[in-house]
Amino acid sequence: MAESNKEVYVKAEELLSLVSTKLANAGLNRKHAELTADVLVNADLRGVHSHGVIRTEHYVRRLKAGSLNGNPDFKFKTLRSGCGLFDADDGMGHVATNEAMTYAINMAKESGIAMVGVENSSHCGALSYFVTQAIENRMIGIAIVQTDKCVNPFGGAQPFFGTNPIAFGFPCEKNPPVILDMATSNVAYGKVLHAREKNVSIPETWGLDQDGAPTTDPHLVRGLTPLGGYKGYGIGMVVDVLTGILLGAQFGPHIAAMYDGYEQKRKLASTVIAIDPATYISADHFMSQMDAMVDQLHAQPTGPGFEKVLVPGDIELALEERYRKDGVPVVGSIYQYLKGDQ
Amino acid sequence: MAESNKEVYVKAEELLSLVSTKLANAGLNRKHAELTADVLVNADLRGVHSHGVIRTEHYVRRLKAGSLNGNPDFKFKTLRSGCGLFDADDGMGHVATNEAMTYAINMAKESGIAMVGVENSSHCGALSYFVTQAIENRMIGIAIVQTDKCVNPFGGAQPFFGTNPIAFGFPCEKNPPVILDMATSNVAYGKVLHAREKNVSIPETWGLDQDGAPTTDPHLVRGLTPLGGYKGYGIGMVVDVLTGILLGAQFGPHIAAMYDGYEQKRKLASTVIAIDPATYISADHFMSQMDAMVDQLHAQPTGPGFEKVLVPGDIELALEERYRKDGVPVVGSIYQYLKGDQ
Repeated sequence: MAESNKEVYVKAEELLSLVSTKLANAGLNRKHAELTADVLVNADLRGVHSHGVIRTEHYVRRLKAGSLNGNPDFKFKTLRSGCGLFDADDGMGHVATNEAMTYAINMAKESGIAMVGVENSSHCGALSYFVTQAIENRMIGIAIVQTDKCVNPFGGAQPFFGTNPIAFGFPCEKNPPVILDMATSNVAYGKVLHAREKNVSIPETWGLDQDGAPTTDPHLVRGLTPLGGYKGYGIGMVVDVLTGILLGAQFGPHIAAMYDGYEQKRKLASTVIAIDPATYISADHFMSQMDAMVDQLHAQPTGPGFEKVLVPGDIELALEERYRKDGVPVVGSIYQYLKGDQ
Repeated sequence: MAESNKEVYVKAEELLSLVSTKLANAGLNRKHAELTADVLVNADLRGVHSHGVIRTEHYVRRLKAGSLNGNPDFKFKTLRSGCGLFDADDGMGHVATNEAMTYAINMAKESGIAMVGVENSSHCGALSYFVTQAIENRMIGIAIVQTDKCVNPFGGAQPFFGTNPIAFGFPCEKNPPVILDMATSNVAYGKVLHAREKNVSIPETWGLDQDGAPTTDPHLVRGLTPLGGYKGYGIGMVVDVLTGILLGAQFGPHIAAMYDGYEQKRKLASTVIAIDPATYISADHFMSQMDAMVDQLHAQPTGPGFEKVLVPGDIELALEERYRKDGVPVVGSIYQYLKGDQ
């Protein structure tokens, strides 16, 4: 077993093939399987392994249990000139959010800003993938999604909102794009789980115990803290309002859990927005000014302990370059699972 | 002098009259003076005194110096169905942002989501005022504005971005609206200045010294920390991109300082967004679900040291109720200034 938890380095192409086959074998149509695999492997390439191929087994289980629809009947409706609604029909959230962003991008060409809500969706993976679609169209991309509860409201003793991530993507001309993809909690739950495994204490700003008190013992954590206290609590609430409430879906503690009720369709809501900078200034001008901002930030003098001021996406890009060359690190047991017949 | 710094309680109506007269006497047209006074007094009523009538003297100085235009030629252009551009002609940012939000609200009736950029603007006061306009129209309001540099990028030794605030407003049916209006720094500069005055130390998470190192000495602070570290740094950057860069204005350290260069027009950029929930679900349904979320948050069990879980806007509303009855606390010297002939 120890051997199976050692990391192996696997080429992205092989992972894509293994994951899409695994998903297709579980009943997901081939096209959706390939796109989902691409979203997952893309997350791994960016070092966001929590949202990478490690999740394949989970989706397979839900596909087999029938709470993920392997052949959904996607429907899109333009509601007003800047707003659309995408019905995911309980299909893969990755594919639905990808299609929704494509609609948003096309609408933004006419409306300047366009928002598409995704209803009856499921876990969609890392949001960076979808804002990148906008970037590739020389647009600004925004994506937000509600998740099931694990973050305490500021001052609260129990979790209410999810980590409710938000992502923004901005195209540059010369530099790589700026991609901010972040949970609205101080840290991801994965960091607490990691500390549990290693049996080491955590900073008291990460998590709260069953009474809502800060704790440094990862085993006692029952909820995460919102980013920076009441401000992150507010932003997490904004995400749930602009997804769950706005689209008439569930919110907060009423959202179906990811790792429970495998027969239950999750009915998640997410929202994507595309903004065409060419509405205001030429896309070239926008992107060259983005370059100026990025270059100036990179050239900033650093504080103690920092080698360089980075911009959002720098770390992920460096990892992607390395992993594309050397392969993606995958936990041995996960790789075995992906290669197996089951 | 000690006497003049004592707080006096002044009725909101008297403050409105004093401030608008003061601004009008400095050359601001009467209508703009009255609206600006309303934005300022509204901030004081909500307890946000840093953005209240205390700023009157500053605007008077800029009006007299010519860097604020007392009779601007406002221009609005619809660029695409969901996007507009408002030229503030160097007038009061408060009035320009108010008018821009009115356009956004009207556009959103057709487009569902509408964004209006404000260019050639100036300091606009607290953003809560503008998202409240959307709330009064049973819409969701979003407002963001770039400010001059005072926050270090994560890992940086010097300030680059401003406090770049963001505001969201959501209407409820039964409850007061939810209004989140926050800077993207951990704390406002005012808190550091307050500690300086009192000569007390500050938490090491608030500010950075000239080398970019955390300091507990408020006198050594040369820059603020971004909210929660790299995440708040990212959000602050998003605000500057969606205002300064998107509208072809300045960004970061190139933004004209508020308290310097009084002859220089500031040419600030801000962006307001209105979203009509009736695009997706009925406004009644949206607002009743907001009520459900707010009620459930208020009923959450609390952690140690908390009496109640609040929602964004609760604290400000409680103050407003008190101040409307008992008068607004105003520093004595400020009240004297407002009552004087100068």
